[in-house]
Amino acid sequence: MRTITALVVLGFALAASAQRFVRFISTDNKEYYGDAILPAGTFDAAKSTKAKVVTGDILGDFRITNQVKPIKKLLAPLPSERVRTVRCVGLNYIAHIDESNMTIPGWPILFYKPFTALNTPSDPIPISEGYQTQGNFTSSMDWETELVIIMKKKAFNISDDEALDHVLGYSVGHDVSHRGWQIDRGGLPQPQFSMGKGPDGWAPWGPAIVSTNIITDPQTLNIWTRVNGVLQQNATTADMIFGVKHLVSFFSMGTTLLPGDVIFTGT
Amino acid sequence: MRTITALVVLGFALAASAQRFVRFISTDNKEYYGDAILPAGTFDAAKSTKAKVVTGDILGDFRITNQVKPIKKLLAPLPSERVRTVRCVGLNYIAHIDESNMTIPGWPILFYKPFTALNTPSDPIPISEGYQTQGNFTSSMDWETELVIIMKKKAFNISDDEALDHVLGYSVGHDVSHRGWQIDRGGLPQPQFSMGKGPDGWAPWGPAIVSTNIITDPQTLNIWTRVNGVLQQNATTADMIFGVKHLVSFFSMGTTLLPGDVIFTGT
Repeated sequence: MRTITALVVLGFALAASAQRFVRFISTDNKEYYGDAILPAGTFDAAKSTKAKVVTGDILGDFRITNQVKPIKKLLAPLPSERVRTVRCVGLNYIAHIDESNMTIPGWPILFYKPFTALNTPSDPIPISEGYQTQGNFTSSMDWETELVIIMKKKAFNISDDEALDHVLGYSVGHDVSHRGWQIDRGGLPQPQFSMGKGPDGWAPWGPAIVSTNIITDPQTLNIWTRVNGVLQQNATTADMIFGVKHLVSFFSMGTTLLPGDVIFTGT
Repeated sequence: MRTITALVVLGFALAASAQRFVRFISTDNKEYYGDAILPAGTFDAAKSTKAKVVTGDILGDFRITNQVKPIKKLLAPLPSERVRTVRCVGLNYIAHIDESNMTIPGWPILFYKPFTALNTPSDPIPISEGYQTQGNFTSSMDWETELVIIMKKKAFNISDDEALDHVLGYSVGHDVSHRGWQIDRGGLPQPQFSMGKGPDGWAPWGPAIVSTNIITDPQTLNIWTRVNGVLQQNATTADMIFGVKHLVSFFSMGTTLLPGDVIFTGT
């Protein structure tokens, strides 16, 4: 099996404050939830080397303790099993649409990944043999870094104005795609994205969920991708076609969003 | 809220035998798993009025007891929470493709519904206001009756020949669609089916999972739909473009299928 890795970092240009939820292995090789302690001079929780231990359930009642633990390895902020549904948005930035010679969609383009696609922010992304041998492998794999919304409360038929009350916070995720399976072999005449985006581990996310206490306006964030250290993508969520409030409200139309559900908001 | 109901019945033309798994409310108003006892002259578990109680886990170790309970209401064979991922197949019968003026797909067309779409076989299918007011409601709602595969064992990169060993059995399901959201408003240039097929309750299934002990060849089944008593769809699984073995194997490419996962095999 061949593997690739991608470095995905989201910079939150915000004041240092509590509730950057992380899940991590400590030096005692046990797993903890924590509130990341930022090193001096950065807002990047991926650089944190220690965290205050959080007890209870970050989707419900929790407590940030004063116990500080060293971070040996940062995981995804929730175990995959806690995420019931992974929603993703296609084509949600003007620049990506120009790049793809496409027109602006009239409604958010929703697709799903199975929860088994979720991955930690730093582990290899496995590419099974079928995805290597069936099609032009080297030109087909692609990355997209995205703002991720994490739901806190059940939401059903809610309005844009009610949306943020149902959100726990934000993270960053990587929507891994095999463009051959996504576009050319996704079906006729309307290719579905599922086979091109759903394999195990093709949705790394984390390491932190930055709470809505810290990010009060999710449309003012910088988001970028470095591949092997080289900057490949540099955007601002101000350029999203459909913003966080509307995505949450729109996806709740007739459909119950549950605590722990995540929404990858598109590239 | 306006509601519609659909009658969906799958006829298994097979010898009477054990392991038609059902879940039901009995006259004591408690919920049970059972092995449906077929009334004389039918193989239709939806007509069963009693069942042998099944203890344990139908996805793992279970026991069919000799305790017989009356059936007051048949539910879906598994609670929605036990189903991790709902996979669906688009356009999987030649006749439906002719009807839609489409060409035969080269690969199975995979799409997902969230597990919240699952519904019992007899409860109303709710249609939220957004699906009634945004678009031509009366011409947009559509039904499709489908054979459903229920996974028993974890499957990853398995072959067609290995597929049936991982299957618990088969049921019948109803892939409810709003064609306007599915096709016209699913995004450009490649409409995704998600908004048109994902609302709560838009995937009724059951009432029985008929085990692979009884259905040894899933490509010899009759499947039909009656809407308000009128026969609207009458097919045989022999006409499926991609059969059960290949669907399971294909979807396991790079992706772990889990016990309790269901696959709606298309119309």
